[in-house]
Amino acid sequence: MALIVQKYGGTSVGSIERIRAVAEKVIKTRALGHELVIVVSAIAGETDRLAQLAQELSCLPNPREFDVLLSTGEQVTIALLSLALLEKGCPARSYTGAQVHIRTDSAHNKARILGIDGSKIRADLSSGKVVVVAGFQGTDEMGNITTLGRGGSDTTAVALAAALKADECQIYTDVDGVYTADPKVVPDAQRLSQVAVEEMLEMASSGAKVMQIRAVEFAGKYNVPVRVLPTFQEGPGTLIVAHEDNMQHPPVSGVTFNRDEAKLMIQGVPDKPGMAAHILSPLSEAHIEVDMIVQTVTGEGTSDLAFTVHKRDFKQALSIVEQVAQKIGAKRITHDKKVAKLSLVGVGMRSHAGVASQMFQILGKEEINIQLISTSEIKISVIIDEQCLERGVRALHDAFQLGAGAQKTAASCL
Amino acid sequence: MALIVQKYGGTSVGSIERIRAVAEKVIKTRALGHELVIVVSAIAGETDRLAQLAQELSCLPNPREFDVLLSTGEQVTIALLSLALLEKGCPARSYTGAQVHIRTDSAHNKARILGIDGSKIRADLSSGKVVVVAGFQGTDEMGNITTLGRGGSDTTAVALAAALKADECQIYTDVDGVYTADPKVVPDAQRLSQVAVEEMLEMASSGAKVMQIRAVEFAGKYNVPVRVLPTFQEGPGTLIVAHEDNMQHPPVSGVTFNRDEAKLMIQGVPDKPGMAAHILSPLSEAHIEVDMIVQTVTGEGTSDLAFTVHKRDFKQALSIVEQVAQKIGAKRITHDKKVAKLSLVGVGMRSHAGVASQMFQILGKEEINIQLISTSEIKISVIIDEQCLERGVRALHDAFQLGAGAQKTAASCL
Repeated sequence: MALIVQKYGGTSVGSIERIRAVAEKVIKTRALGHELVIVVSAIAGETDRLAQLAQELSCLPNPREFDVLLSTGEQVTIALLSLALLEKGCPARSYTGAQVHIRTDSAHNKARILGIDGSKIRADLSSGKVVVVAGFQGTDEMGNITTLGRGGSDTTAVALAAALKADECQIYTDVDGVYTADPKVVPDAQRLSQVAVEEMLEMASSGAKVMQIRAVEFAGKYNVPVRVLPTFQEGPGTLIVAHEDNMQHPPVSGVTFNRDEAKLMIQGVPDKPGMAAHILSPLSEAHIEVDMIVQTVTGEGTSDLAFTVHKRDFKQALSIVEQVAQKIGAKRITHDKKVAKLSLVGVGMRSHAGVASQMFQILGKEEINIQLISTSEIKISVIIDEQCLERGVRALHDAFQLGAGAQKTAASCL
Repeated sequence: MALIVQKYGGTSVGSIERIRAVAEKVIKTRALGHELVIVVSAIAGETDRLAQLAQELSCLPNPREFDVLLSTGEQVTIALLSLALLEKGCPARSYTGAQVHIRTDSAHNKARILGIDGSKIRADLSSGKVVVVAGFQGTDEMGNITTLGRGGSDTTAVALAAALKADECQIYTDVDGVYTADPKVVPDAQRLSQVAVEEMLEMASSGAKVMQIRAVEFAGKYNVPVRVLPTFQEGPGTLIVAHEDNMQHPPVSGVTFNRDEAKLMIQGVPDKPGMAAHILSPLSEAHIEVDMIVQTVTGEGTSDLAFTVHKRDFKQALSIVEQVAQKIGAKRITHDKKVAKLSLVGVGMRSHAGVASQMFQILGKEEINIQLISTSEIKISVIIDEQCLERGVRALHDAFQLGAGAQKTAASCL
């Protein structure tokens, strides 16, 4: 008998029919003898409907009241799922974030969980009940309702699993696990049976959005085993593990990419301390997130600074950078919106030398020009022409033997 | 400067446009220097929509979870009204029932308010905010969400007014006050500027549904001055007062009626103790509410028992009574669905003798046959043929000088 926290997203509870199907899934798992806590999101489309109502009244809705409004979405779902479970004879009880004291800071619309009081839930589990908790919401110290931002239900589930010391946190989604690459681009891509938290973090930030980043961080910090599973089919999914020092790792776990990036480069920046901050601070003040940052000293007392932003922020970023460039006396600005980021991710890189040079050789053989390079301990990212992206993904996936055809070889490494 | 609690029902906040209109009304009142607490219901139709979702999952939804579901309706409205107020520059803050500790018993779907913690509200009022509170909801001792039953927002408003010692509780509705009779039946009917709590109670139970009965009881119990006002027009409405011993009263304040009643009579009931209970208990067990009950001993050791039920319950009531009649050896059952109840209400009856006989004379002159009579201290009700109802209402309204034409005479009494 295990204690399992399951999370079902908006699509999984997208209709009365689907809520009934989730109830059946829950009852099946319970019949195996497990204790269950279920975290649910708002019915798909409901959060948008509520946000739309607020928009009709205010362009920039007051964050506190916006949270009061949005949090009703999950409250509706917990009641409906509990009704579905009770109707099928399964004892169940729902709780809002406030009712189980999911304490957060006061950063409305993007609050962070500080603690959870698991006592009510534990009592209900002991008496044989399935406990259904509203995701995405909590209350601050003053009792104000807060929400965790889009995708926050993942974090609620992981935080609950940590607080209750659950054996596993299961995140049900519309994909059947984490893949070595996007199967739409690489038909040969393989579901990973296991992936390290750090890899998930790097994959998420590279565009593979299976789970909310903050939830993955939480899982790592509190050592919660998380499994990503498909809602509407059977399958073991992918287990995300926090610590797995005993494992043998292949050098690369997956190939990820992000088509949303645009590149900006300021050339001939006077090579003086503080220049990078001088350029990037105005972007941060304008709430533009900067992803890759690469600086090179070109000699002659100047340097080049290149970075990428989301394509949606490109125009605004360019206009800011043009002003800054003039102020600091930089020589020239170049930019390219038609780029993409391609990354190799793998905790095995730590113990395998030469993965980067191998990656550059493979891309070179494919005649794909590398515009920027950035590396971390377990990830290598390059910016390339977006036209070459899919070819690059497939070439790397093949060369590092991640596909189904190479399964036997790769499996021996795992 | 006064502290005023205002309540706006579902129709008053029935659309984004109307919520904006309510916000403007609130801001106007605040500009006069008043402190305001606003209680709102769910947007018209929303409670039904939510109930419908529950019905799709369960014929008899679990009461606790049903309350979790329904209470989201009011929560949406408090957020939207606060957003509308804030957008217009008026400081505002919303609270759910749980947040201001509206404590109730645990009778889900029809809970009773036990207490309210006014401290947060008082602090907000002191800092110049308009406080917006969700009607219809509270939490029990265990922190479970409860609802007060349909129309419960009226009770929330009156209870808040009592807890905060407000100067007035204003109930905004789609009528412009309490009338001497239904203006649809009596074109000459007059708005009452003032009415006693007991009169409101008798009027409500006779079918004049301006305000929830429990809210009126609360107003009487805690001596809260309540005013019924129209939302979408100007006007002083009707003030409901708890104690007004100093006032001179006309014998009759209003004529009310109820078309929903059906009459049943069991004749030849053995005249033994406990017979009435024997007949009425099975009805109460079947959740059939019995209104008027009249028993007469006919001699020969038998009595007749007549009573009225809602027309909707008539068929079921008849079948129950047929079984009981057989069991107790009653002689005969007669029934009539085509009846209506006609009532005179007025606290002045206490000090004016002969109102009843005057009423019977007037109806006699109109050749209206009286089938049943029932009296209380401040009300006289008769059951008559429903065909004669409107004629009866108008005749009584005229004879007791309640109309606009008789205003000058009546006013001297008020």
